[in-house]
Amino acid sequence: MRKEIFAEIEAIQEMQSALYSKDFLLTWEKSDDDLSMILRVAGVLKQMRDNNISPRVFDTGLAVSNFRDKSTRTRFSFASACNLLGLAVQDLDEEKSQISHGETVRETAAMISFLSYFIGIRDDIFLGEGNRYMREVAASLDESHREGILPLRPGVINLQCDMDHPTQSMADLMNLKQVYGSLEALQGKKIVMSWAYSPSYGKPLSVPQGIIALMTRFGMDVHLAYPEGYDLIPDIVEKAKEHASKSGGGFHVSHSMEESMKDADIVYPKSWAPYHIMQKRTELLKQGDVEALKDLERECLAENAKNIHWEYDQPLRAVTRQGDALYMHCLPADISGVSCPRGEVSARVFELARLDTYREAGYKPYIIAAMMFCQRFNAPAKVLNTIMKHNKARISHV
Amino acid sequence: MRKEIFAEIEAIQEMQSALYSKDFLLTWEKSDDDLSMILRVAGVLKQMRDNNISPRVFDTGLAVSNFRDKSTRTRFSFASACNLLGLAVQDLDEEKSQISHGETVRETAAMISFLSYFIGIRDDIFLGEGNRYMREVAASLDESHREGILPLRPGVINLQCDMDHPTQSMADLMNLKQVYGSLEALQGKKIVMSWAYSPSYGKPLSVPQGIIALMTRFGMDVHLAYPEGYDLIPDIVEKAKEHASKSGGGFHVSHSMEESMKDADIVYPKSWAPYHIMQKRTELLKQGDVEALKDLERECLAENAKNIHWEYDQPLRAVTRQGDALYMHCLPADISGVSCPRGEVSARVFELARLDTYREAGYKPYIIAAMMFCQRFNAPAKVLNTIMKHNKARISHV
Amino acid sequence: MRKEIFAEIEAIQEMQSALYSKDFLLTWEKSDDDLSMILRVAGVLKQMRDNNISPRVFDTGLAVSNFRDKSTRTRFSFASACNLLGLAVQDLDEEKSQISHGETVRETAAMISFLSYFIGIRDDIFLGEGNRYMREVAASLDESHREGILPLRPGVINLQCDMDHPTQSMADLMNLKQVYGSLEALQGKKIVMSWAYSPSYGKPLSVPQGIIALMTRFGMDVHLAYPEGYDLIPDIVEKAKEHASKSGGGFHVSHSMEESMKDADIVYPKSWAPYHIMQKRTELLKQGDVEALKDLERECLAENAKNIHWEYDQPLRAVTRQGDALYMHCLPADISGVSCPRGEVSARVFELARLDTYREAGYKPYIIAAMMFCQRFNAPAKVLNTIMKHNKARISHV
Repeated sequence: MRKEIFAEIEAIQEMQSALYSKDFLLTWEKSDDDLSMILRVAGVLKQMRDNNISPRVFDTGLAVSNFRDKSTRTRFSFASACNLLGLAVQDLDEEKSQISHGETVRETAAMISFLSYFIGIRDDIFLGEGNRYMREVAASLDESHREGILPLRPGVINLQCDMDHPTQSMADLMNLKQVYGSLEALQGKKIVMSWAYSPSYGKPLSVPQGIIALMTRFGMDVHLAYPEGYDLIPDIVEKAKEHASKSGGGFHVSHSMEESMKDADIVYPKSWAPYHIMQKRTELLKQGDVEALKDLERECLAENAKNIHWEYDQPLRAVTRQGDALYMHCLPADISGVSCPRGEVSARVFELARLDTYREAGYKPYIIAAMMFCQRFNAPAKVLNTIMKHNKARISHV
Repeated sequence: MRKEIFAEIEAIQEMQSALYSKDFLLTWEKSDDDLSMILRVAGVLKQMRDNNISPRVFDTGLAVSNFRDKSTRTRFSFASACNLLGLAVQDLDEEKSQISHGETVRETAAMISFLSYFIGIRDDIFLGEGNRYMREVAASLDESHREGILPLRPGVINLQCDMDHPTQSMADLMNLKQVYGSLEALQGKKIVMSWAYSPSYGKPLSVPQGIIALMTRFGMDVHLAYPEGYDLIPDIVEKAKEHASKSGGGFHVSHSMEESMKDADIVYPKSWAPYHIMQKRTELLKQGDVEALKDLERECLAENAKNIHWEYDQPLRAVTRQGDALYMHCLPADISGVSCPRGEVSARVFELARLDTYREAGYKPYIIAAMMFCQRFNAPAKVLNTIMKHNKARISHV
Repeated sequence: MRKEIFAEIEAIQEMQSALYSKDFLLTWEKSDDDLSMILRVAGVLKQMRDNNISPRVFDTGLAVSNFRDKSTRTRFSFASACNLLGLAVQDLDEEKSQISHGETVRETAAMISFLSYFIGIRDDIFLGEGNRYMREVAASLDESHREGILPLRPGVINLQCDMDHPTQSMADLMNLKQVYGSLEALQGKKIVMSWAYSPSYGKPLSVPQGIIALMTRFGMDVHLAYPEGYDLIPDIVEKAKEHASKSGGGFHVSHSMEESMKDADIVYPKSWAPYHIMQKRTELLKQGDVEALKDLERECLAENAKNIHWEYDQPLRAVTRQGDALYMHCLPADISGVSCPRGEVSARVFELARLDTYREAGYKPYIIAAMMFCQRFNAPAKVLNTIMKHNKARISHV
């Protein structure tokens, strides 16, 4: 096993990346090599842990978690990643679900960073706000570092915004790499990112957007399916198209779940809110127009209800490649008859895929740790080598 | 001092236990040797700390705390125990005081466990639910470990459920071992677990149940006293009887506080809710019948009020062994004239015992640490020996 | 750089202090040498961090944070300080903003301390209560340590009370020492602690009190300016007078912002509530007299509004030394037109000083760490020397 890890580190050694001292905000701001390096570093960190080798590189240090929306999965992934590298997590308890700008953001960013190495932010509620907020934080950190107030510039990690959910999509990609054996093996594979019915409304767009923008880069045949009206942010759809044409993959939009699923290798059925509704909702939230928000919700739920048959079930599964496409989901899924009367997926089909979704989720801590690792170290392979040579146990004396 | 510690480790070396890789959910699922080993390991960990030797065995790692009921004491004990061994605590903030089952429990258990070593759970509100919930978590962990999703199966520690409060009762037993010099010295000692009046209603049954089920195993003469109607779970009372007859101890039920206290060596006066009321309450809570719950509370408080004279006071203390029985309590006690007008114990008597109750509480972190230690390591004595040899300081350079 | 650090440690070696095993509750209970040592130790810890040397002295251990008022800045400073030295922070979630006394305080203090090294407390709401609460905690710790319940007496750190805010004022002093080059250079410097308008009411007195009581000790010419009626606690004003006459500095009270600002080297414009109002408020809060509290608030805000012109703006700045006094603030400031329509400081003037206030805030984590360090170690210089010799990296392999 040690041999395999060293071989993987050697492969990393030969890669070029521009990840050092850069924030991770959107996958489409990163090169293919950057993403590939993160996958490899994540893989090595996972192997180290599986072999009881501690990749702790921080003797002490803080990482700040700033969750402006509630979360269990991502919170634990972030905490696990920080802990794996030796950092303690300190939560920033801002008033949740509020749009913050200007002096408060700028000042808070400095106040939490004097001895911090990373700031993980989740801000996915308001369209046009989450990613912008992260950039305001980043700009303040730049200023404080430039001015000598911060001896070290903490890295910002996007733990989900209004545009992208890079730790999720990269964990999904790591899962696919594992299932199919390599990134190269993904070439030509058909993946369907499909809208699916949910009794709730206003789910973020970041997962479908993140998936179509990322998977198109590796030559996959990406199909986006949704009922008319449930569009994603147009600019990001455009990115997906560009990526597909550049990578030799495909990108297709369909308004039929049935058609799109045909011969799919991988399916990702998940609910989201239409882009224009999210825009309207953000506007109304800014105005604090409670009545109009209620009307909007009613309207959307009625619209949603028309698409209640967008459920991934056994007949749909049957038309996928060999009747057994890989099912993916960021969890929790809305499971018909389990978590809601009618939802994104039938109970029978979800149960068949349940452990696969757990496995998929299990890559996220390592992806986050790899993003931090590559942000902090200019020569990740060298540091990984040193860790292997030190061979410190994560659990002593076992 | 080092000599004494090594001697104690040698004694542990010769013991047999089946604690390795097992959850700690109920004391009565563990053998006498298991319990005895935990006491000894806890003792060694305490001595190490008292001598500034760090028993840190985890370089990094998470422990999850899942408190479905509020807690200060147990929360700090768990945090202290985890920290002593090198683990960082990550809180799981589920919606509190809710009964969870099925997919949510199963999935969450996996999501929080990718890099975790222990899950400490407190779920003591609903009769028939708390311990069952822990077993659902445990079953999910088993599955994920079996399927290769978790490289390591985290251990589950019961931090109080509807049936037992093993970290409390074991800390109490450690206290008694310390006071009387050995477990053997407990043989024949009279301990009275007595109901006592409290102005609140619905206190869990886990402490009295835990005490009678545990103390009967060491030959103690256990007396359970309560006003008619305040029964405990019958199956657990049955366990206590069996344990007493097996260990050569005694188990007696009385409905008079005065009579039971006579010549007692140890007294444990504490309020709890009657078993059948807790059953009814759980039923009504499940139904969400707010009105009926209010009626039930009124009824119970009226019933409670009839037993307001069940207060441990100086005249009662006077009839105990030499007028000075050891007073025990899991804290906080309802102290007459201090925390409430009338409560479980008079202010004068509590003040005499106050520091004893602090001392009693002080064993809990070590008990929890020992439970974790013995779950994780197949040969605890060997690991303890290695720690002694490394002799790493908890505080450097003092 | 290492040479400079060693030189500074040598200077510390030659100092006398009585900080060992003492709580840090009020600066005026400490000698000049004590304060000077804390500044020097804080400086060394900062230099170590800036040079990637880890001053971790605790392999494991807890520090308790007890914030009875909300806080971001002090919370992160405390977390950073604890983490720097190797301690994990465990929050004590008491019911906030409540006056606690007696058994609960005494008992809780013991329960959270079995494996803890420090308790940081912020309790600044009620006049006459915050500091008293800290002393109750301290007394309980003394008792438990004396009785052998706690093998080690945790240190108590005042993170802001009704009387003083020592971590803030000491960080401010460290900032001044940095700006002017030495403590000696502060001799004769004119600092104006001035009341300033804020649309809120009831801000604590601890910052202005802490500033006048501390800065008078170093020969500074301290001017306290406020509208008539906005008095501070008389005893503390008395302290400031004594300190000034002893140190060869000055202490002057003025009721004109304009006059006091003339030729000021340093200005600290900040809102606070009048002393007698805080007394009345505490009384009403104890009585739970909601109506009277509303009346009091109305009355105060009306009184405040009369002093809306107490804003530090460009014309005022112009009369300070060379039109460019050093502006200080504990943050967040009420900035006119930014965080409120009219506030303590004009937007233009604040922007000029903004980065200075961030720099000022950046010293707080090191001050707190130094307070803990000097409480824990009898010979801080020796321990610092050992840390330098070990030369352990805070971030490995960079």
